[in-house]
Amino acid sequence: MTRIVYLNGTLLPFEEAKLPIMDRGFLFADGVYEVTTVIGGKLVDFASHCARLRRSAGEIGIAVPVDDARLLAIHRDLVARNALDEGTVYLQLTRGAAERDFLAPEGLEPTLLMFTQAKAVLANPAAETGIAVASVPDLRWERRDIKSVMLLAQVLAKRAAHEAGAQDAWMVEPDGMVTEGASSTAWIVTQDGRLVTRAKSHKTLPGCTGLALEALIAETDLRLEHRPFPLDEAFAAAEAFNTSASAFVLPVVTVNGRAIGKGVPGPVTKRLRDLYLAFARDTAV
Amino acid sequence: MTRIVYLNGTLLPFEEAKLPIMDRGFLFADGVYEVTTVIGGKLVDFASHCARLRRSAGEIGIAVPVDDARLLAIHRDLVARNALDEGTVYLQLTRGAAERDFLAPEGLEPTLLMFTQAKAVLANPAAETGIAVASVPDLRWERRDIKSVMLLAQVLAKRAAHEAGAQDAWMVEPDGMVTEGASSTAWIVTQDGRLVTRAKSHKTLPGCTGLALEALIAETDLRLEHRPFPLDEAFAAAEAFNTSASAFVLPVVTVNGRAIGKGVPGPVTKRLRDLYLAFARDTAV
Repeated sequence: MTRIVYLNGTLLPFEEAKLPIMDRGFLFADGVYEVTTVIGGKLVDFASHCARLRRSAGEIGIAVPVDDARLLAIHRDLVARNALDEGTVYLQLTRGAAERDFLAPEGLEPTLLMFTQAKAVLANPAAETGIAVASVPDLRWERRDIKSVMLLAQVLAKRAAHEAGAQDAWMVEPDGMVTEGASSTAWIVTQDGRLVTRAKSHKTLPGCTGLALEALIAETDLRLEHRPFPLDEAFAAAEAFNTSASAFVLPVVTVNGRAIGKGVPGPVTKRLRDLYLAFARDTAV
Repeated sequence: MTRIVYLNGTLLPFEEAKLPIMDRGFLFADGVYEVTTVIGGKLVDFASHCARLRRSAGEIGIAVPVDDARLLAIHRDLVARNALDEGTVYLQLTRGAAERDFLAPEGLEPTLLMFTQAKAVLANPAAETGIAVASVPDLRWERRDIKSVMLLAQVLAKRAAHEAGAQDAWMVEPDGMVTEGASSTAWIVTQDGRLVTRAKSHKTLPGCTGLALEALIAETDLRLEHRPFPLDEAFAAAEAFNTSASAFVLPVVTVNGRAIGKGVPGPVTKRLRDLYLAFARDTAV
């Protein structure tokens, strides 16, 4: 089966999809992206990803060249053409291609690229075992609320985590507070059962999965606190977990080699994963 | 005349040079770059750019796939094939192309791209008139000493400067200190004739032109102070200027619309530009 991707209005074989060397995504990281998860051939929390894409693009002055209905149609075409049952649809929007100059010319045609990746989502083994996390200094820029492709700090964070035997990194500010995972939102569950994660700010990406989970939590008896937490509080927590579009709710069982709680996925995390899974199945389009 | 670029070992026409969509430079800003200026068909301060390229690449764990002699040969080939008399050679090195994953696979073949751009260097009209600078908050990441393609903050800074009627931006930290220009090193000349620019640190890029100029200054009677300076000190300065590979020494005559000194290029700036021009001509290869 030929892998089909979308590039600037056209569905075409993966090998034929090529970028001009002057694309500003390549030269300047002048672009934004989204990753939408697919289960059972349907898109999870799609409207939320569209909204975030428009916000990110708007913050850096790139117009999204297609409307939400067309975005949905392209996503669905890609899922169908690649017979994708479980995995992700990656979307990248850049300011376009032009002779290299920091100052982009007016009226540039944006580059819109989309492709699928197959991966285990519902039967992700890490959801059963939990993952190890390593902390790294948060080296990123000041506008982490924009989902830009300026991802080198996260690339270095993931590599450092990998070298430490961990599957994700928690990034920590000089003030000792955890901001978020390298590709996820960080949460802890305190010994008295409160959920703690950061409030939205320029310091972190507004996670679509975290946002949806917060709405689900509001309908339970669980208490949610929006505030930063230090690593020490995580070490003393009952449970920890990450949320992300592609992994949903993923238990964190060790941080820097220290067991969190009993060192196995905890009951609150499992409950939240089940809640999110039900939401994902019910609302996928 | 067909524009010729270099991509991964091959010289080829501009239109034929295309990048795979999975290039990590495009997806993750996982790469570094250099810009070397050409005057009279020769490369200015070439060894310094090679050394900085190796340092930047080393800091993020990318091996430069060719030695300095080969880099020089490719630069010269491009200059000859494009009949470039004055302008720049742009070089970008990325970790390579692989299925999208923050964690890059081992043994990836790096992407090495180089192309030329013609522009007026010696007869740059801005060197006669000076330029206007606008200040913007410095939003960049913590490793600005690495010349990475994570340039979105600089793109936004240049656009903000342009919208304010300025030709470059000076980026300012929350502590009120100027770090550097969006694509240059910032300098002031105090009323008593001292030159002030920041010392090397992770806060700024180690500018090749600034470094060469410092060596030239050391052989004059001019006094150089390595320290940060606030905007207010720039407003009260006798002169200001930027250094960069493609503009050498460029007078800054206004900052945020306020004239610096007499609001025209000053004698110290002119002297330093002449010094650098002589160095550039004498040492170009």
